[in-house]
Amino acid sequence: MEIIRIPKVMRDAAEGYRLRAKSIGFVPTMGALHEGHMSLVRMARAENDIAVASIFVNPLQFGPSEDFSVYPRDLEGDTERLRKAGIDMLFLPEAPLMYPKGFATSVAVEGLSEKLCGAYRPGHFRGVATVVAKLLNITSPRRAYFGQKDFQQTVVIKRMVKDLDMAVEIMVCPTAREEDGLAMSSRNRYLSEAERKAAAVIYRALSETSEAITSGIIEGRILKGLMNGILRSEPLVSVVQYCSVYDPETLDEVALADRACLLAAAVMIGRTRLIDNMHAGPGR
Amino acid sequence: MEIIRIPKVMRDAAEGYRLRAKSIGFVPTMGALHEGHMSLVRMARAENDIAVASIFVNPLQFGPSEDFSVYPRDLEGDTERLRKAGIDMLFLPEAPLMYPKGFATSVAVEGLSEKLCGAYRPGHFRGVATVVAKLLNITSPRRAYFGQKDFQQTVVIKRMVKDLDMAVEIMVCPTAREEDGLAMSSRNRYLSEAERKAAAVIYRALSETSEAITSGIIEGRILKGLMNGILRSEPLVSVVQYCSVYDPETLDEVALADRACLLAAAVMIGRTRLIDNMHAGPGR
Repeated sequence: MEIIRIPKVMRDAAEGYRLRAKSIGFVPTMGALHEGHMSLVRMARAENDIAVASIFVNPLQFGPSEDFSVYPRDLEGDTERLRKAGIDMLFLPEAPLMYPKGFATSVAVEGLSEKLCGAYRPGHFRGVATVVAKLLNITSPRRAYFGQKDFQQTVVIKRMVKDLDMAVEIMVCPTAREEDGLAMSSRNRYLSEAERKAAAVIYRALSETSEAITSGIIEGRILKGLMNGILRSEPLVSVVQYCSVYDPETLDEVALADRACLLAAAVMIGRTRLIDNMHAGPGR
Repeated sequence: MEIIRIPKVMRDAAEGYRLRAKSIGFVPTMGALHEGHMSLVRMARAENDIAVASIFVNPLQFGPSEDFSVYPRDLEGDTERLRKAGIDMLFLPEAPLMYPKGFATSVAVEGLSEKLCGAYRPGHFRGVATVVAKLLNITSPRRAYFGQKDFQQTVVIKRMVKDLDMAVEIMVCPTAREEDGLAMSSRNRYLSEAERKAAAVIYRALSETSEAITSGIIEGRILKGLMNGILRSEPLVSVVQYCSVYDPETLDEVALADRACLLAAAVMIGRTRLIDNMHAGPGR
């Protein structure tokens, strides 16, 4: 596995593969890798000639009061996992090379970026869109892989790629889950033992709401109340930022879950912010 | 000359050349071609394997009170000129294919976009950056050609390309001028005969200010006064939006023209807005 730290070197290497008609599968990450990331890596390997991963904790997508400085980092462990998983090139840029002095450009996806998480993390998706645009230009992949856990992120990125005519296919892979259903997330490392157990309530709320839809309860207002009730029944859930039934394309709340829809929630468990989502409804 | 109207078809054609290691030189235009455009086309032909031009009057870069609807269009004449000049592919998209329903993405270059023309055309450079990002992704050129007349545009685009790690070289070609020095511009077609004669004052103001610097007058304030005085001496100049001595990288006004600098001006002649600029100072 080749480790590349300079954007221009990475871009030239990727361009070299492209010119030899080798398809690149790209997995952008912020490190602290878990099974969710590794499932993306396996897909990238299986579907392309060359598998490239990146680890970059992107300062641009963290708010001033967020967890950038304490975001879990495990460069040694991550590198070893990626090597064993057969990644061909690991792109490991430092922030000053990604955002040098004079950096002034941002990519915004309006509308989609202000909903759900965006309402609680102003500027987050602008930071995500900007760094993903850069990473896609640097690695010029045929396909780039993202986890469904960050559903809104995948919607924003798909929109950006389509709107800016970028020649890459955005692949969204199923959320990897712990045995009790908790969505895998690097931020799960923040949880105390008690919080970790409590966190399973999110998957339970999503699952039971999905079952309610299957059983014929389709009024959005009632489903939202059901999900909210389950989440609030857990004493360690300190805040429910949002939970409801959404249109998976517009991310607007739906009045009736009478077609494929998305259940999504964001909660604070102690001081840790967790998100999760699930497709539900007919034709999902 | 192949004429392509569908972004995806254009992107696939360009990608095909790229895979065969053919370099593409790209000239984006809004049509109503003049000798300035044609000099870009000649450069694109000379320096690359394949020359691609586009004609697209980009609604995104016009303000609500600006001249989008009356912007000069001469598709037949333009096509013929490009064919004769040896353009290989002409990309001719329609707005609904460039900005389909649901389009939500914009590219902004902060700081540089708000100065000079940006102060008088809010949103203009965001529209420019967004469409150029799209056009570069669609045509994947090795080099893209822009005229120096739109100097601020070239600074904004160079910044965007660098910041987003786009694999293209931005080439800036000298401003083409009429015999009396007037910078060629599609908007010159708006001028009455008297206005056309009066418009030569812009080049005169730039040239005389440049000569003043060469003769040792380097105080920015005095040079600005000189330029402003010459422009205002022409009765048909109804407004001087800006005129001064700028740093060519930051576009800030300079106190002293003791190094390479940029003279730039924007004026209204009757109802027509004209801009021009000139490198000046030592080491230019």
